[in-house]
Amino acid sequence: MCREWLRAGERLDDLQRCGYWIIQNPGKACFGMDAVLLSDFTRVRPGENVLDLGTGTGILPILLAAKTQGGHFTGLEIQTEMAEMADRSVRLNGLEEKIGIVEGDLRTASEIFGQNVFDVVVSNPPYLKEGRENEERSRALSRHEILCTLGDVIRETSRVLKPGGKFFLVHRPERLPEILEALQRNRLEPKRMRLVHSCSGKEASLVLLESVRGGHPGLKVEAPLIVCERPGIRSRELRKIYGEEEN
Amino acid sequence: MCREWLRAGERLDDLQRCGYWIIQNPGKACFGMDAVLLSDFTRVRPGENVLDLGTGTGILPILLAAKTQGGHFTGLEIQTEMAEMADRSVRLNGLEEKIGIVEGDLRTASEIFGQNVFDVVVSNPPYLKEGRENEERSRALSRHEILCTLGDVIRETSRVLKPGGKFFLVHRPERLPEILEALQRNRLEPKRMRLVHSCSGKEASLVLLESVRGGHPGLKVEAPLIVCERPGIRSRELRKIYGEEEN
Repeated sequence: MCREWLRAGERLDDLQRCGYWIIQNPGKACFGMDAVLLSDFTRVRPGENVLDLGTGTGILPILLAAKTQGGHFTGLEIQTEMAEMADRSVRLNGLEEKIGIVEGDLRTASEIFGQNVFDVVVSNPPYLKEGRENEERSRALSRHEILCTLGDVIRETSRVLKPGGKFFLVHRPERLPEILEALQRNRLEPKRMRLVHSCSGKEASLVLLESVRGGHPGLKVEAPLIVCERPGIRSRELRKIYGEEEN
Repeated sequence: MCREWLRAGERLDDLQRCGYWIIQNPGKACFGMDAVLLSDFTRVRPGENVLDLGTGTGILPILLAAKTQGGHFTGLEIQTEMAEMADRSVRLNGLEEKIGIVEGDLRTASEIFGQNVFDVVVSNPPYLKEGRENEERSRALSRHEILCTLGDVIRETSRVLKPGGKFFLVHRPERLPEILEALQRNRLEPKRMRLVHSCSGKEASLVLLESVRGGHPGLKVEAPLIVCERPGIRSRELRKIYGEEEN
């Protein structure tokens, strides 16, 4: 079915959700476990209008379209090639009515889309402050704060969200103090947090955060998500999130 | 041995550490698991000078004197009766050289002790914002922010700590965003965090935090501490912290 959809160096992956597929280029930035965990952590109610800031391959809008009853999903991506590839994935899955990929700079998201327009914002932004010299460009942009900082993501989220709208973020626990401070300063109140540990007994490698624009203070820290029960053996919860195990 | 040390309503508890005991009055504020977990989380190096802000029964200085090689421990307590009882526990254990109990208001700690004087500050402060009418007075003071707020504790800690000094705090995860914001605003950089869950699968009930005065950003979130393996069965780690199980 798929030869005509792929360009040189690209491959097609089965998302194990609703028969959806995604196009990726293994030489460039591919989606990781982070995006899958964020899609599981994110709560979208029927009909809601969702924005993904820095959508990359388009993985988050596609997974959320599969897993939720959201009304419409927009993926904003600054790199022309990535945006084009994400758009092909949307069309390949016949999701043009449900998902729009927009090429643009997330630092100006509130100019592109306007203020107070989305019910939900999600983001899996670059985690690292410093850039690296030897990295492939699109991978470097997805990992390092070269084209946008955490502050940009949070500021624009606060602007494009409706009052009471929700923001779902995945990031590194190392930066949690800075993240929580920036959220509060932008009137995004942290309400729910989940830490991800590679194994029980190991320190956390990721943090998932839900904030509410203009919410009342009061954070709930959920039970940790353990990736591997034993070295090499993924936990039942992780297999369920990947759609490999029934409830 | 002990009749002469106790007043009406008081009892004597074995701390299972170095043969130390503690006097408590079950009608008033008693120490809880929080203090024991904080004493385990706290790292004191040989010879260091430690302050406990709001010491209550004196449980933290006594446990830290038992578990560490710290040089001297000071417990600051605003309630005359509690300070007097804590002082009797110190003398009962023959720890007068090691521990001093000072009656005073933690909101003026930096006036009482001066600035830049302690290597380590610990605190198990009141967790709740609102006071309750029907509670026994000393219990209400230990639970609710009546005589001091989180902001007071953090501000005075930042003043009395030496540069590079460490602050160990136990609190409720609900208030984590506010705690991390206040720490950073007072140049106390959060460096190590551990969440306490009553059972695996349950949300966190306590948070333990280590901050460093003037430290570089970068938080490590340790493996969670699980209180009960199964309902009613305390975990091996908890039994070890309580001194009931060998390493």
